[in-house]
Amino acid sequence: MAFGHQREDSRLILLREISQEGRIPRIDLAERTGISRATVTTITADLLRDGLIEEIPREDGAAGTRGRPRVDLKIAGAAHLVAGVKVSGSRISLVLMDFEGSQMAEHEVPLGAGRHSPEALAGYIGDAVAALAAKIGTETAQISGVGVGLAGTIDAGAGAVHWSPSLNARNVDFAAMLTERMGVPTYLDNDANLVAMAEKTFGLGRGRSDFIVVTIEAGVGMGIILGGEIYRGTRGCGAEFGHTKVQLEGALCRCGQRGCLEAYVAEYALLREADTALGPDTSLSGQIARLLGAAEAGDPTAASIVSRAGRMFAMGLANIVNIFDPELIILAGEQMQFDYLYADEVIAEMRKSIVQVDAAPPEVVIHKWGNLMWARGAAAYALEFVQERAAREGRVDAA
Amino acid sequence: MAFGHQREDSRLILLREISQEGRIPRIDLAERTGISRATVTTITADLLRDGLIEEIPREDGAAGTRGRPRVDLKIAGAAHLVAGVKVSGSRISLVLMDFEGSQMAEHEVPLGAGRHSPEALAGYIGDAVAALAAKIGTETAQISGVGVGLAGTIDAGAGAVHWSPSLNARNVDFAAMLTERMGVPTYLDNDANLVAMAEKTFGLGRGRSDFIVVTIEAGVGMGIILGGEIYRGTRGCGAEFGHTKVQLEGALCRCGQRGCLEAYVAEYALLREADTALGPDTSLSGQIARLLGAAEAGDPTAASIVSRAGRMFAMGLANIVNIFDPELIILAGEQMQFDYLYADEVIAEMRKSIVQVDAAPPEVVIHKWGNLMWARGAAAYALEFVQERAAREGRVDAA
Repeated sequence: MAFGHQREDSRLILLREISQEGRIPRIDLAERTGISRATVTTITADLLRDGLIEEIPREDGAAGTRGRPRVDLKIAGAAHLVAGVKVSGSRISLVLMDFEGSQMAEHEVPLGAGRHSPEALAGYIGDAVAALAAKIGTETAQISGVGVGLAGTIDAGAGAVHWSPSLNARNVDFAAMLTERMGVPTYLDNDANLVAMAEKTFGLGRGRSDFIVVTIEAGVGMGIILGGEIYRGTRGCGAEFGHTKVQLEGALCRCGQRGCLEAYVAEYALLREADTALGPDTSLSGQIARLLGAAEAGDPTAASIVSRAGRMFAMGLANIVNIFDPELIILAGEQMQFDYLYADEVIAEMRKSIVQVDAAPPEVVIHKWGNLMWARGAAAYALEFVQERAAREGRVDAA
Repeated sequence: MAFGHQREDSRLILLREISQEGRIPRIDLAERTGISRATVTTITADLLRDGLIEEIPREDGAAGTRGRPRVDLKIAGAAHLVAGVKVSGSRISLVLMDFEGSQMAEHEVPLGAGRHSPEALAGYIGDAVAALAAKIGTETAQISGVGVGLAGTIDAGAGAVHWSPSLNARNVDFAAMLTERMGVPTYLDNDANLVAMAEKTFGLGRGRSDFIVVTIEAGVGMGIILGGEIYRGTRGCGAEFGHTKVQLEGALCRCGQRGCLEAYVAEYALLREADTALGPDTSLSGQIARLLGAAEAGDPTAASIVSRAGRMFAMGLANIVNIFDPELIILAGEQMQFDYLYADEVIAEMRKSIVQVDAAPPEVVIHKWGNLMWARGAAAYALEFVQERAAREGRVDAA
């Protein structure tokens, strides 16, 4: 039992190391992981036999001691497929990845605005995953794991949604519902956590063990990576940056409380003040554009709306720095319309509001990308579970 | 090399396990640590020979297979002495502990108010440690490690003080200075971190791996325990709860910035408003008592000062919960005068301001104790380092 446990751990450690390095000689694996050369030889032979890794000739073409070409090890892409799904207010975005993390297909379907019943949303997601698989001529049953990112308060460990703007019910065992609907193990997480996962796996957080990702979409989200892992809190509802309070008895938030950061910086917060300042507009995005245009043109009321949002955002960010003292903060989002929050003045204001010591303040970087990056994070999240199962069971055959 | 490293790790793991359990049979050690029985037998024999642990008869008097009394293992208290020191605005408080964590002596000396030069403060601490050792007829050189807690922004890893209200200089290599002054390895940390350490080792955080301690003294401090370890941040200046902002362009803080939580809830914040409301008083503590008395007697201005402090504190606490989602928050402090911040209304207000999910909110407990508890935390911190050295080197002989 004890031996089996160690063996399983070593399989996972080696699989992860190979995955992270892309391609690596056997001999380096022993050095990097501290696992003995003999054990590395045995386990990599197992992994080869299970089809989880493969040998490829060294790129430098160097020959080994007996004249055979030297080989590196790499993940066998064909071993597994994983899907990543991001549900936003207006669409479902999906990517399909192989076991190596290479993107095989992408797909996007529109989603009706507002809240959906859990059954209906599970159906939309199931149909979209099937359509994604069809893009490479396969089917859902050939996928080994699906990662799904939703906005809201999610208990990832339990696979449960406490609350989400996409669902019309609270406390839904949504991972179980999706697993049953698709017949594929499904892993659920808060969408901001999955962005953090994407940044760690493919993005600016690669090789960093401690950083914070702030996302701005319809709401404000945060993902915290500590020691290389997503920090989730006890009930799975930590990192609620958008609902930290920046003003006692302040502006009304969609959550029903007052003074939340979101109530100052989210689109709806700007819109309600824009209507006061400029008169109503039937097009919501048109109204935001009008507001930002008026602010830029020097309209003092419009400028005060935008500048207050920026200052509140800087204050919230400074609080995060004062609490976590991270080495890196990534401001991530897809919508160029939030540029006013990413402005140099906002970052400068944040730096002025943190505890001043004679050491460099955290690096702040801005990373703009599309919905597919969120979906890639969801796929990377599912990939971790599939790697664990593959390490435990040998090759995991899809249902 | 690799073996030596593992052996050293196993020594530390067993030493920590025995220390945590108080007394434990050999056979349970193997079970709890996953270290093989043979290795446990070898290493505990080493630890016995080094004088770091000792055998004591089982309390139930049960006899072993050959009629010999069964024995438990325990830490040999006499193996090492450690001292813990807490520097506050008005005094230096110290405890002396043996290697088992039993308190051998305590000591307190007054400290002149205001800022001191690093050399002067190192001198006061050195003298106080010598006086502490003299209480049990020994001397500083017989102490294996000294832990020191200071208010301010401390880089514990580097043993450096970025800034402290007790020092008149910034960026001081204070741990090195103390080590040289006393001839004993000295470990420095932020005082709130050491309270968190004390709660984890002796207090309400015993057996908990994730919790937050908020301390209220002259300022507001925070210690964060995640995964059983103190969370420190990149530059060693995280957990600056007192300087999180609760109001944009708010009240002036001692740090020079505006809107910090401290600028609403610390003693000086109440005092400056008390002077406005009640007229100046020559006695600071007398003025606080007058303010609280007037608030209780129904004076609306006095009541508004106290109630605003409480509401700002609740808002700050709610932000911590929204970010960390901890299972437990310990409000710790020695001064009964901060009761208004610990009031039921404040806790209720905090609970109303956190993200609402259908799961129990974090437990909030209030733990009042004296300066010696801070010093005990400092000693527990030093004890961890001395345990590590003892595991590495066998018995560490004092200089």
